[in-house]
Amino acid sequence: MREIDLADIDDIARGAGILGTGGGGDPYLGKLLAEAAITRHGPIAVVTVDEVAPDAVVVPVAMLGAPTVTQEKLPNGTETLAALRALEEASGTAATHLVPIEIGGMNSLIPLALAAETGLPVVDGDAMGRAFPEAQMVLPTLAGVPTSPMAVADDKGNTMVLRTVSSLWAERIARAACVATGCSVYTADTVMTGAQLSDGLVAGTITLAQRLGSTVRGARAAHADPAAAVAAAVEGVHLATGKVVDVHRATTGGFARGTATIAGPDAQLRLSFQNEYLLAARDDEIVATTPDLICVLETDTGEPITTESMRYGNRVTVLGIPCDPRWTTPAGLALVGPRYFGYDTDYRPLPPRPAPEPGS
Amino acid sequence: MREIDLADIDDIARGAGILGTGGGGDPYLGKLLAEAAITRHGPIAVVTVDEVAPDAVVVPVAMLGAPTVTQEKLPNGTETLAALRALEEASGTAATHLVPIEIGGMNSLIPLALAAETGLPVVDGDAMGRAFPEAQMVLPTLAGVPTSPMAVADDKGNTMVLRTVSSLWAERIARAACVATGCSVYTADTVMTGAQLSDGLVAGTITLAQRLGSTVRGARAAHADPAAAVAAAVEGVHLATGKVVDVHRATTGGFARGTATIAGPDAQLRLSFQNEYLLAARDDEIVATTPDLICVLETDTGEPITTESMRYGNRVTVLGIPCDPRWTTPAGLALVGPRYFGYDTDYRPLPPRPAPEPGS
Repeated sequence: MREIDLADIDDIARGAGILGTGGGGDPYLGKLLAEAAITRHGPIAVVTVDEVAPDAVVVPVAMLGAPTVTQEKLPNGTETLAALRALEEASGTAATHLVPIEIGGMNSLIPLALAAETGLPVVDGDAMGRAFPEAQMVLPTLAGVPTSPMAVADDKGNTMVLRTVSSLWAERIARAACVATGCSVYTADTVMTGAQLSDGLVAGTITLAQRLGSTVRGARAAHADPAAAVAAAVEGVHLATGKVVDVHRATTGGFARGTATIAGPDAQLRLSFQNEYLLAARDDEIVATTPDLICVLETDTGEPITTESMRYGNRVTVLGIPCDPRWTTPAGLALVGPRYFGYDTDYRPLPPRPAPEPGS
Repeated sequence: MREIDLADIDDIARGAGILGTGGGGDPYLGKLLAEAAITRHGPIAVVTVDEVAPDAVVVPVAMLGAPTVTQEKLPNGTETLAALRALEEASGTAATHLVPIEIGGMNSLIPLALAAETGLPVVDGDAMGRAFPEAQMVLPTLAGVPTSPMAVADDKGNTMVLRTVSSLWAERIARAACVATGCSVYTADTVMTGAQLSDGLVAGTITLAQRLGSTVRGARAAHADPAAAVAAAVEGVHLATGKVVDVHRATTGGFARGTATIAGPDAQLRLSFQNEYLLAARDDEIVATTPDLICVLETDTGEPITTESMRYGNRVTVLGIPCDPRWTTPAGLALVGPRYFGYDTDYRPLPPRPAPEPGS
């Protein structure tokens, strides 16, 4: 057990923004929520997966929707608690722990904010080892843990509890409700026992996010290349450094979808995204695909750039980071591989790690 | 208390089809469901509003969606029970009675089928005195009884329970979930105590439907004009007799919307509908508007014609029937008047009752 206090949030937010591969919502908003909750209620207890009792009731809470909308339509601050309580009431059990559903931007910090508010401890880990856009795209799905029952709360005070015959139906119905209520809702679902965590979580990712955030901060202070420092810390592969010269983005079906082009000195890198960066092609040759992490950092500062905030003129470095190995199994790729998202390509492992290019 | 048995269903279905003003779903499907349930489980107990104890828990169950879809995607037969049980579990109370939310086609008979299955009595009445397309368009809304909590069940086995800050939000979220799951779901909502029934229901409409169905059957047997017999029984106004010469219909937003033109010997009547017939204009002069009932009967047989089954060549007689007086109050018209549906007209009371024209 350790504590997370105000001073830790900045690094966690930055690191979670990197691991979120552009998705999970604006880490800055998540940082504000977590900092406000800690200021009001005190520090957060964080436990490792090994410290959780087998009969613990571990509940992921998250934002579901289009980050383009969440950026403008801020939560009123009561949604995640409303979703948690609705889920507890419907399932007749009380949560003993919270956990991020994804280590990505805002969605890594929302459980921390709710943990401060409720006094519940947070499990150090998440259910993806990155961020993905749809509710069923979690390791618990591979481990046979359903998304349902799923509680959804909106900013107006509406809640709903779904019991579905599949996790994909939970995603579809929750997404429809999300769109109907303004494209940004808050969820509690995919409840795990402590015994299910080793299969359902990537362990230690809150700490990893904090370490990456600190790495970036350290590199910046030392006038070193932050992206190179991140790559070295997580076996990352340098994919491109250059300027964002084109962004196409639309908020459709409850997602932020689009493409972005990064022009470098020697080549252009084209990114495709649905909330998260999912595909990277260098001059039409695919160099990285989901489920590997495609992470966009501001070249000078190492700050993560989300899909909804990327804009013309950003000077960026793109890294590929290998995903959790459970995602590259046949079942994993069926759930989150490029073809699920409609891209006409199989999964391609990242290229071997070259020496990082000099920054910007 | 009386019993409804197999022999009664045919008349109820026909009469409810008439009172449903084109909506509520195909009465033939409802008839099959009710007849199958009675054959399997025995007759249904029907009680008057006066016979219901003040602390009774009265639950309306219904289909919500586009009747155009329900006509092709039949219920699997488990949906209404699933919705009822989800609502009971969520609210921690057991239903003591069922009641139709609307006296309209299929939705009048679904509660009868569920009553046979569960052994619960049905209250003789409904919450509109006709059919309307949206969940909040019920007298309980005027009486301060909320739609929420609302349980929704689909044909796949998914259920959801909504708790909303307004009845309009219940409608919006349920409609979105309905569209996401195939445009036809089944609901239990707008729970009333026995004490609330006098404000929340139009009393006696199941019996009225049965009487109208029997009136049509009798007129047919006597080679009399069935529509004229109906009009005489309910203070109805003859609006047109003629041939359907044009139907525009689209299934959009979870509704069957469109227009139909009926060419008579002297004039054309144009009907506009959203699941139900909502507006009737004779040569561009509006002659009937929601919330009054606009009922389309096959001229020869007196069989009701729903908005989803109306087709070119139908020989029809259109009647206007005065609605329950609570609907023409300012609050009633704000909820279900023509302007709510986007028609640029105020409510116009039906013309005075002329002598019926000779049939066909």
